[in-house]
Order: sequence, then structure tokens, then C-alpha cells
Amino acid sequence: MQLHLCTWQEVERYLETSSGIIFPIGSTEQHGPTGLIGTDAICAEVVAKGVGESTGAIVGPTINVGMALHHAAFPGSMSLRPSTLIQVIQDYLVGLSRSGFRRFFFINGHGGNVATLKAAFSETYARLADLQIPGADQVHCKVNNWYMNRDVYQLAKELYGDREGSHATPSEVAVTQFVYPEAIKDAPLSAEVASGFPIYGAADFRRHYPDGRMGSDPSLATPEHGQQLYEKAVDAIATDYQKFLAAD
Amino acid sequence: MQLHLCTWQEVERYLETSSGIIFPIGSTEQHGPTGLIGTDAICAEVVAKGVGESTGAIVGPTINVGMALHHAAFPGSMSLRPSTLIQVIQDYLVGLSRSGFRRFFFINGHGGNVATLKAAFSETYARLADLQIPGADQVHCKVNNWYMNRDVYQLAKELYGDREGSHATPSEVAVTQFVYPEAIKDAPLSAEVASGFPIYGAADFRRHYPDGRMGSDPSLATPEHGQQLYEKAVDAIATDYQKFLAAD
Amino acid sequence: MQLHLCTWQEVERYLETSSGIIFPIGSTEQHGPTGLIGTDAICAEVVAKGVGESTGAIVGPTINVGMALHHAAFPGSMSLRPSTLIQVIQDYLVGLSRSGFRRFFFINGHGGNVATLKAAFSETYARLADLQIPGADQVHCKVNNWYMNRDVYQLAKELYGDREGSHATPSEVAVTQFVYPEAIKDAPLSAEVASGFPIYGAADFRRHYPDGRMGSDPSLATPEHGQQLYEKAVDAIATDYQKFLAAD
Amino acid sequence: MQLHLCTWQEVERYLETSSGIIFPIGSTEQHGPTGLIGTDAICAEVVAKGVGESTGAIVGPTINVGMALHHAAFPGSMSLRPSTLIQVIQDYLVGLSRSGFRRFFFINGHGGNVATLKAAFSETYARLADLQIPGADQVHCKVNNWYMNRDVYQLAKELYGDREGSHATPSEVAVTQFVYPEAIKDAPLSAEVASGFPIYGAADFRRHYPDGRMGSDPSLATPEHGQQLYEKAVDAIATDYQKFLAAD
Amino acid sequence: MQLHLCTWQEVERYLETSSGIIFPIGSTEQHGPTGLIGTDAICAEVVAKGVGESTGAIVGPTINVGMALHHAAFPGSMSLRPSTLIQVIQDYLVGLSRSGFRRFFFINGHGGNVATLKAAFSETYARLADLQIPGADQVHCKVNNWYMNRDVYQLAKELYGDREGSHATPSEVAVTQFVYPEAIKDAPLSAEVASGFPIYGAADFRRHYPDGRMGSDPSLATPEHGQQLYEKAVDAIATDYQKFLAAD
Amino acid sequence: MQLHLCTWQEVERYLETSSGIIFPIGSTEQHGPTGLIGTDAICAEVVAKGVGESTGAIVGPTINVGMALHHAAFPGSMSLRPSTLIQVIQDYLVGLSRSGFRRFFFINGHGGNVATLKAAFSETYARLADLQIPGADQVHCKVNNWYMNRDVYQLAKELYGDREGSHATPSEVAVTQFVYPEAIKDAPLSAEVASGFPIYGAADFRRHYPDGRMGSDPSLATPEHGQQLYEKAVDAIATDYQKFLAAD
Repeated sequence: MQLHLCTWQEVERYLETSSGIIFPIGSTEQHGPTGLIGTDAICAEVVAKGVGESTGAIVGPTINVGMALHHAAFPGSMSLRPSTLIQVIQDYLVGLSRSGFRRFFFINGHGGNVATLKAAFSETYARLADLQIPGADQVHCKVNNWYMNRDVYQLAKELYGDREGSHATPSEVAVTQFVYPEAIKDAPLSAEVASGFPIYGAADFRRHYPDGRMGSDPSLATPEHGQQLYEKAVDAIATDYQKFLAAD
Repeated sequence: MQLHLCTWQEVERYLETSSGIIFPIGSTEQHGPTGLIGTDAICAEVVAKGVGESTGAIVGPTINVGMALHHAAFPGSMSLRPSTLIQVIQDYLVGLSRSGFRRFFFINGHGGNVATLKAAFSETYARLADLQIPGADQVHCKVNNWYMNRDVYQLAKELYGDREGSHATPSEVAVTQFVYPEAIKDAPLSAEVASGFPIYGAADFRRHYPDGRMGSDPSLATPEHGQQLYEKAVDAIATDYQKFLAAD
Repeated sequence: MQLHLCTWQEVERYLETSSGIIFPIGSTEQHGPTGLIGTDAICAEVVAKGVGESTGAIVGPTINVGMALHHAAFPGSMSLRPSTLIQVIQDYLVGLSRSGFRRFFFINGHGGNVATLKAAFSETYARLADLQIPGADQVHCKVNNWYMNRDVYQLAKELYGDREGSHATPSEVAVTQFVYPEAIKDAPLSAEVASGFPIYGAADFRRHYPDGRMGSDPSLATPEHGQQLYEKAVDAIATDYQKFLAAD
Repeated sequence: MQLHLCTWQEVERYLETSSGIIFPIGSTEQHGPTGLIGTDAICAEVVAKGVGESTGAIVGPTINVGMALHHAAFPGSMSLRPSTLIQVIQDYLVGLSRSGFRRFFFINGHGGNVATLKAAFSETYARLADLQIPGADQVHCKVNNWYMNRDVYQLAKELYGDREGSHATPSEVAVTQFVYPEAIKDAPLSAEVASGFPIYGAADFRRHYPDGRMGSDPSLATPEHGQQLYEKAVDAIATDYQKFLAAD
Repeated sequence: MQLHLCTWQEVERYLETSSGIIFPIGSTEQHGPTGLIGTDAICAEVVAKGVGESTGAIVGPTINVGMALHHAAFPGSMSLRPSTLIQVIQDYLVGLSRSGFRRFFFINGHGGNVATLKAAFSETYARLADLQIPGADQVHCKVNNWYMNRDVYQLAKELYGDREGSHATPSEVAVTQFVYPEAIKDAPLSAEVASGFPIYGAADFRRHYPDGRMGSDPSLATPEHGQQLYEKAVDAIATDYQKFLAAD
Repeated sequence: MQLHLCTWQEVERYLETSSGIIFPIGSTEQHGPTGLIGTDAICAEVVAKGVGESTGAIVGPTINVGMALHHAAFPGSMSLRPSTLIQVIQDYLVGLSRSGFRRFFFINGHGGNVATLKAAFSETYARLADLQIPGADQVHCKVNNWYMNRDVYQLAKELYGDREGSHATPSEVAVTQFVYPEAIKDAPLSAEVASGFPIYGAADFRRHYPDGRMGSDPSLATPEHGQQLYEKAVDAIATDYQKFLAAD
């Protein structure tokens, strides 16, 4: 059930039985020579839709552009500054809290979003209290990184071992191949790939990771893997969402 | 050509021949008893994809949530505050200007976005100058409201006359029916519909427009109309985009 | 009745019978070789005073500096960034709403202010609701561009035809001549004048409009025209203000 | 020489021989039962015009609304929050620094503005350095409170002694009577007037100063006093401005 | 009684009998060739602890970094921008007001903090009112500059006369010598020292005050002086704090 | 070597051989019935001083108040909002980067700070690039949570097992007892202690953790444990700091 495909009266009825909403959050950033710039958003969105179907939850609009300032030295990468993203999340959550939503569950496709999201949750709880919105002290927010769920993570390790890496990974590329088989890319990948450098600023990042990959070999990805990973992710996250809803 | 389906190297090559990018911008807000909450984003996105295909332009990720504070009294409506949206637009445009983009063309599905977008463009030009980004003084931004292009507007008038109204219009509903025929809604619509009140705050809006429509009769919409309107919009906007690119 | 010339007790009494206030808003920006930098503020202020006299409305202090970032490449031009102006408008309106004002009517002399003003109104309505100010949901804001009222516009067209242009127009210059006959300027004006280029950033603007005029011939202006235009503007706007006050 | 009555080319020529500009800054706030709400702006503006005439300096548009949050419990009082005023001052000074201005002299009519103005100056110097505006390290800002100049202060003490007080003072009221003799007010003033309480928030202020005066007896004011005070202020400040311009 | 050494239950009990809290606020900035970068924070902190012991007041954590943008051209100097410091003070005071604190007393070691602190107090009073925190209209804030108390000031004048100067003064250096005798510095001091230039931006400051001192001769400082100054400051400020608490 | 005890000339010399600086960052928040409100700042500060002594690094002033909004329902707790803390960190790092510092190492005593710190680092890298500070692309930031270093963590587990818990832990209490033996508290601790609830807003937190502890038994703490934990922390972090400095 996608918020975008509901009427406001359907939302009103939904709120009689559930106060939960799921937001896919991704990023728009380079993913190496063969990874799609929208990889993180595509993965988060498809998994969120799956979880929405499986649980009956409303799925809000995808946050396509996240916190990816460290990728800014590669053309086509986009980012919100953390302080902007904090404002965006606040605007989303304050408004929907007034509608009656109380459980905000973010399915996340990009590690770089996590810190800012958590900061945003803290700031939002305080702002909701400031605004004296009735029930605001019941608001809970959670972020679930789809690729970190145990079953997903284990499957990726089984399929790719160390060549999974940590950015432009074969597992995320595989999910995008499953969703957009028509957009599977063919580009030369050097056998050697940089890894192990911490992430600092954008120029520093590109200096250390010249083709954008971080220790990964995305050539291992297949659409079939993508489907398997997708299914594991939907199952694991649907369970997590239900627990999140149920908790006091 | 969607930015989300490109690699960064493809963007790099694209920038050798074009500095233009198209952004669909919509809203997530009530559209009356039968209109989808995502109407404005759905329309802007599909038209933008069409224009992208027709012109070869890159189409960036859809801005799903716009400036819709006046709809906030209807459940499920979402909005950025204008000052937040200004920050978002700045972050988008500053980053992409560093990549080499110079022509930012927004295909807009929601009248409430226009003022804030224009304010954001002004603030962005000044910030680009502050940042001394080379070529920043070449940056041009433009917003095209798909429903305001003459051919689109005339077709809507022909099809619906005065029953087009100004929010939750049959024309925009028709386009969403064309895109999502599976999400055509059936809900009672009162014969009488409020119209003519100016837009102020959210409570005031709901008081004057109790079911969310502004003078419109969306029951007139059909998917076939939607396709016609879509095609007229793509044609008109593709032409406008080409002129925008060509201008000095 | 000017707010600046009232005591607070007079304002308290005024509020027993009216909740309306008028704000002149102009700009401080180049107006071509012969136009005054304060043109937009001077026009807005004089018209607002006239409307105040004609309707008994309180007229607040003139907002002298508006959103004119695109004029920044000409010496002496000043501007607020849109996000600053939004804060200013909020501070004005939140404070006066606490006093009991409910109808804020802006008489505007500068097209570049409109988008930001409208964004500011939207943000203010939401903030008033956040602050739970009693009666905040009754607050209405409106902007009236003095030069766009039909009778004013028609007179300008009759007097100047196409040579009215769109910036540093003879009509606005005429009004300043009527107000400050001692400041009528004499400077060479090229016969040819740029027109038709859209407005982007400041450097781009000056490149396209090297002397600051946009398609106008301000040499046609006379103080007598200024008085006629002033009178038409006061009449039209006084009527509009009364309607604004009366509406629910 | 008022900026509002100059053309941009006149400003360009002015900058060849001077980089100084004077800004009157006042406030829009209650001044007791007989003082005008615009008192501080009226005084600052008239003195600034006098100084401008006497020194040949350009005088910018009056900042009518200052930092007067503590007066907010009296109807008709307006204020910017300090953080808003800091943004406003920055926008003014950054823009004019790009034009070539280097000496910003504020003639101030309201004690409540001083702290925020000084904070704004500090923030502006840093921002000018951040922006790498050529010559930015030459920018100097100064605030001169017209009523604090020795000769003005002494005359006020001679005329009014302890009944001068510290808000809604006879000296400032006298200046407004000199400027607007038609707006001399007649309202009952209690013989006793509160004094000696520090200034905290708005409700606290009104509790301690119920009619808005702070230890003053504005019934002593006359237009003739106003003229004397005005002349002393212009003389003293003109001298101070010249020294300010001359200093390295 | 230091807040850092209390438990929350001890604070809860404290609030039953007092609503006062003391904050030391200093700066981290150059203090000439022999003065410690932490001078202002060290002085404010030790005096505040003394006042806390003498009065039983809770002493909050030291604000180590203040508004010292004009010292930024000397290595090791740190500063908050005024608008940042305003946010910090607001966050401190809003939170503690919710706990029940009503009297906020700042013992300040740096002249450059005063303007921003006062601006912050004004903005905080207004925000507390916006938030409708019960009792918020009882909140009072005050800043006491330890070196400006009459007895302290007189002792400094007796000890150092004109060689006290106004930055990196022997009196403040003496207090740091009293607190940290192990950190007494030995570095050459030119006999001549700049003085009399107003403070503008950082580059300008360093140009006029090349070794960082403003008219001072800190070689006169001794730890014994420091102790005397400290004791005078504690006595004077303890009295002032008690009066502050007692006032309505 | 503490920044506060250096002169600016000593910092200038230090920068010839090192570009590293260490910042202790803690929090001011409830730590259960027996834990000090300053626990996190005290621990971070003492460990940072130890690391400074061991490595010769400069240690900057302690950030005493961090991101602890979830503790706000306990009296005496203080917090910065995340967006404020981001501004503070930016101001610190931008200023010191201009001085020549390039390696910023935060020793952290509070889990709640981590997300906001990481967000702040990202925003700072981007702002440094915006400001075009020479060498800005060499700036690296890192946060080390003293209690998470393997040797520290293992010792805590050995000493306390499951009774370590996750807030108001015996290990952090022990370190404060080592530093301030005079401030060891005696207060009743219920045998049962809440644990396992995720952290959301302040009211929710207090509802689930009524005495402030999260699964911990701080009665197990001793000053001797504190010393052991301190020593392990200093050793581990000194090594980590050296590696951080050495990396490219």
C-alpha cells in the first residue's frame, strides 16, 4: 500500500487500525563503473514495497537523495547536507504526527544516511514535544539497513565472500539488476580495487577510491542473486517492522 | 535517460555534450476523495520521463514532497516548509553545478511549489556566486508547470470546461489513471464543490474546502484523457526544454 | 494612519474594530541610469499611505529592502536572501498576530518580492499553528502589486505602450517624480534597450541588461503621470483591501 | 544624500571618493501612552539625514524594525529576533561590500539593538573573510547611539534631570515632536512611573512597566527641545562619522 | 556545588529551594605572548566555583569557547559565530527551564561574549514564551563580567594603572597564575604595545595588535595578585548573585 | 599539553611538527541515582588528558554538553539539539583548520553523541571545501568512544559481566570515582533495573527507565577499577591516535 496511490480518506481509515508508515531512503551517488547512481534508492524502494505488501503497511514516498557528501567528486552524485536532511526528516515526521502516525520505519539503502537519520530522529522527538502534539511522546522511529539484516548479509557473504566489499557491492548491484534488467551495465573493472581507507571528505575519497568502488567486485552480481537477496530482505524486515509496531 | 539508471562515467560523458538536467517536482498531498495523494509527483514524473526520452536529457530523481502546507489538515498530506525546500534545492543545484551541470529544468506538478522554487533559484544563484564555482554565472533554472502549457490547458478546457477546477482536477487525475489504471478510485463526490476561496493556512483551507477539491469534478477523468494530456505535455515541454538549453 | 505615528493605546483601540494592517514592501536596487534606487519602496510607501488614508487602515513601516539578488551587480543595490526575508516576514507576522492582527495586506512595488513573500506567508501560517496562538487560523495574508491593478496597468499602457518595459519602467519612475520632484534625474539613455531575457543570477543579469533597464523608456515619465498613476492605484487597492478585510 | 534618491551610476561615482554609508536603525515598539511607536526609527532617520547632509555621506534605507522582543506584550510593537536581525545585517553588508563600501556607520535610536548589532558585525566580518571578497578585511562597522553623545546627553539632563528616565524619554519624544508636530499626543500620564527593574522577557517587562514608560516623564517634551537635541546630535555624530571614515 | 558532580536526584532536591544556576563563560583565544589561550575560561571557571561555594549555588559546566572571531588570525584561537552561540545558549536555557531553573547567572571572562550573550537572552525569553513552558515568564538571565566589578577593577588599577590595558591584561593573567602556577610563561614582550584601535575583523585586529596584546603589560602579573583579584571577584559576585536571586 | 594552557606562539610552534588535536566530548545528563551528571565529560576529559600526555598531542577544551535530548526528562540534564551541535563542531573545525590543524580526534564519553558527530564531520568536510581553505582536503576527523576500545570493554566485562548495562554503567562510574573520590555518591538502587528498550524521546525514556539506569549496577564501581579502566583506555587510544596521525 503506497501512500502515493491512496486517497486521504483511505489514509484516514488506515489510521484507525495502524499508526505505522515505512519510508524507503536511499541516495543518488556514484556506485563505481557499473553500478547505477540510483542504486541505494532503487534497493530501498523495492524492498520497502515488498515489505508494504507483506505487512499491509503504508509505504511513503522514497527519499531519493540522502547524505552522500563524500561522493561529491564523482559526476552525477547528489547529496543533502546533514543539517538539510535533518530539516527534511523533521518536516516529514511533524506533519505526519499531526495526522496520527506514531511509528516511522525507515528502510535504508545507504550507510552514509545512518548517522544523520539518527540525529534527525533525536531532534524530531524534541520538536514534537515542543509542539505539544497530542501523543507525540508515543512517536518511535527506527532505521533498518536492508543489507545488514542477518539473512541478507549471510547470503551476500556466501555468494561473494570478501569480494562483497563495502560500496558498489555485488549484492546491491544484483538487486538493481533484478529490478531493472534493462539497465545492466558493461564497463571495464580493474582487477585491483582499493579498500580499507576511512571515509573523510569528497576529494580525499576520490583520491583513495579512484573508480568509486570500495573493495567490491560488482561483476559477480546477477539478477537471480538480486531476487534472492530481495526476498530475504523483505522477509527479515517484515518481521522487524511487525515487532517495531507491536512494541510499547 | 534517468540519472538513477546511469553510472557516473555515463554522466561524465553526457556532460561533454549537454549541461542540462530535468527534475520532476510534485507533492504528496490530498487530492480529494478520489485523487491520489501522489498525484502531483506521479504526473510530473511521467511527463519528465517522456521529455527525457524525447530529448535525450538526463532526468534526475523526483522531488516527491513539495510545499503543501495548506493541505496539512488532511491525513496523509506531507510538506516541506519553504525554508527547508530552499535548502534542498540549493543542495541539489550546488552539488550538480560542481559536476558541470548548468541548466536546471523543473517539471512541476503542483502550483504550491512555484513560489518557493523561484525563491530557491534566486538564493541558489547567489550562493553559487559566493562559492566561486567556475561557470556558476552560467547557471540557469526554470520551472515549467506541465498543466499550464497552452496545448495541455486548452485540451483540459475542451474536455472539462469549468469542471476542471483548480485542485484535484480531472486533468491531473486522468494522467494518474493513465499511469496507474489499477489505482482508479471509486468514492462518492458531492455534486456541489467549493470554489473561489483564496488559499491561506491549513485549517482555513479545510474549512473552506471540506473534501479537498477546489471547484473540480474529477469523476470526468478517464485514462484515455490522461494519455492525451500526457502526450500534449511531453510535446510542449520538450520544445520548451530545447529552447531553454539553447539560450545563452 | 501610520503605525509609526500611533501610540500603543491607539493601536489597542484600533484593534477593537479592525484586525487589518497594510505593509508597503519595496526594494533598494538599481533602476537604470535615471531611476532612483529606492523606486520600488517609494512607490509602495506612497500608495500604501494613500490607501491607509482612504480606508482608515493602519500602515506599518515600509520594508525597504526586498529580494533583489539579481540586481546585485549594480553598485548600491541591496537585497535580502529569500530565506532571510522569510524570517523577517515571520517575525513581523507572529508578533502582530499576538497583538490581535489577523489581516496582513502587502502593497508591493517589486516583482522580485512576490515569490518569496508567498513562500513566507505559507511558512508563517504553519508557524502560527505551531505556536497555538489563539485565532491564528484566522490569519490571512495577501500581496497586491500596485502596478498590476487593472486600471493602473491600462493607464501605463495608454501612456507608454511597449516602451513601458518591465524594469525601470516609466510608470514607476513617474510615481517617484510625483513624490520627489526634486530628485528627477537627467542622464543619457541609449535608444536601444535590452529586453526579453529571463532573469537568472546577478552577473548574467548585468550581462544582458547592461544599463539596468529591461525594455523600458523611463524618459517618458512625468510627475503628472505619476500623480495619475498614484490615484488609480490608491483607488483600486483601497477597494481590494476592503474586500480582503470583509472576507471570511 | 539618500541612497533611495540616487541612481546606481551616482553611487558608482560616489564610491570613487568615499566608501562610507550611514544606516539609521530604530525600532517599532511602544513608547508609553504618549510616545509614538515609531519613535526610535523617526529619531534615527532624521538625525541620519542631517548627518548625511552635513557630511555628504550616503544614507541608506532606515531599518525600521529592530530588536524589541521585550516590548512584545504591548499592541503594535514589532521585533526581529536577534538571529533574524543578524541575517539581515549580514545580507546588507555583504552585498554593499561587493559594491565597494567599506565603512558602515549605524545611527541607532534604540538601546535594545546594540547587542545584536555588535554580534552581527562580528559575524559579518567573518563571513566577508569566508567569501574572500577583495578588500573585505578593510570593512569597519560602528554603531553610534544618537542619545548617548555627550552633548545630547547633557542637554537632556539639563532639560529633564531625573525625569529623563530610560524609555519613552522626553528627549526622544521631543525629537519626534520636532519632526511630526501634527502627531503630538495627549494622553493621561500617571505621576508615578516605574523604574529600576532590569529588562527580561516581554510579560515580565509589562508586569513591571505597566504603561510602557521606564522612569520617564515625556510630558516635558516640546518640539523646540526636539530641534535643539536634533542639532546637537547631528553635530556630534557628523564629527564622529568623519573620524570613523578617516581611521585606518 | 558543581552540576557535574551532582546526581539528578540531588538537582531535584536543590530545585525545591533554589531555581538559580551559575554558568562560567570564557573563551579560547590568544592572550599575547605570555597569556594562556584558556585565560578567559580559566578565570570565569575558578571565580564561578568560588561563588558557588560561597552561596551554595549550582555551577554548570564551563562554556569554554565563546565569541572571539576577532582573534581568529592567531593560531589556536577558537570561536563560535554569534548565531551559533545564540543557539547554544537557547538549548541550555530551554532545557534547564523545563527542569525548573528560573535564574541563569553567567560569570563572564571575555568582553567579546557580552553582546552575543545579551542577544541570546532576548531570543531565549521569546522562545520560552513560544514554547509555553509553565513559569517561563519568570526566567531571568544576567551576565556579570568578573573583571568589571568595582572592587576588582579598582584593585587592578591600583596594581597596574594604565598598564592594565584591555586584552591579555595583567589582572587576568594573574588569576591564571594563581590557578595554574605550573603554567606561568616566559616569553619576550616588547616594551611598546599597541592600543586604542577599535576591534573589527580578524585580519584587521592582527594588523593593529601584532602580538595580541591590547595596551597591556602582563609581565606585572603575579600569582599573589591573582589570589587577591580572585577573592575580590568572588565576594562581589556572590553578593550580586544573591540580589539577582532575590529579585522578583 | 592542553590548548588552554598554551600561548598562541606555542601553538604556532606545535603546528610545525603536528597538525593533530584531541577534543574530549562528553555530556551533561543524568546517570542514575548514584552517577554524576558530568560522568561522560569527566571520563572523556581525563582520558584525553592522559592521551595528550602520552602522545604529546594538544588537547582542546572539553565539549561538556553533547546530544542527550533523550535524558531531558530528568532534572539537571542538558543537551544541544543535533543541528546546534553540528554548528558548534563546524565552528571549531573551520577555525582551527585556518590555523593549520588537519587531524581532529574526538575522545567521546557518550554514545548519544556519535551520530551527530559523524553528521557534523560530513558537513564540515563539505564546508571546508566550500571555503577553499588551503589543505582543507587533507582534514580528517575521527571519534573514539573510550569505553568501546577492546581492552577497556573486556575489562569492564570481566569486572561486571551483564551488570555493566549500557547507561550509568559501573565502568564509567568507576572512572569518575577515580577522578573525584570526594564525590562518590550513596543512594538506594533498586535491585531490578530496566533494560532492553530502545531509545526514543525523553518522556518515553523516563517511562521505561524510571531511575535513569539502563540495565546497569553502578554499585559495583570502585575508584581502583576506575584507575585500571582509565589506564587501559589511555593506552589503547594513544595507539589509535598515533595511527590516525600517521595515515595519509
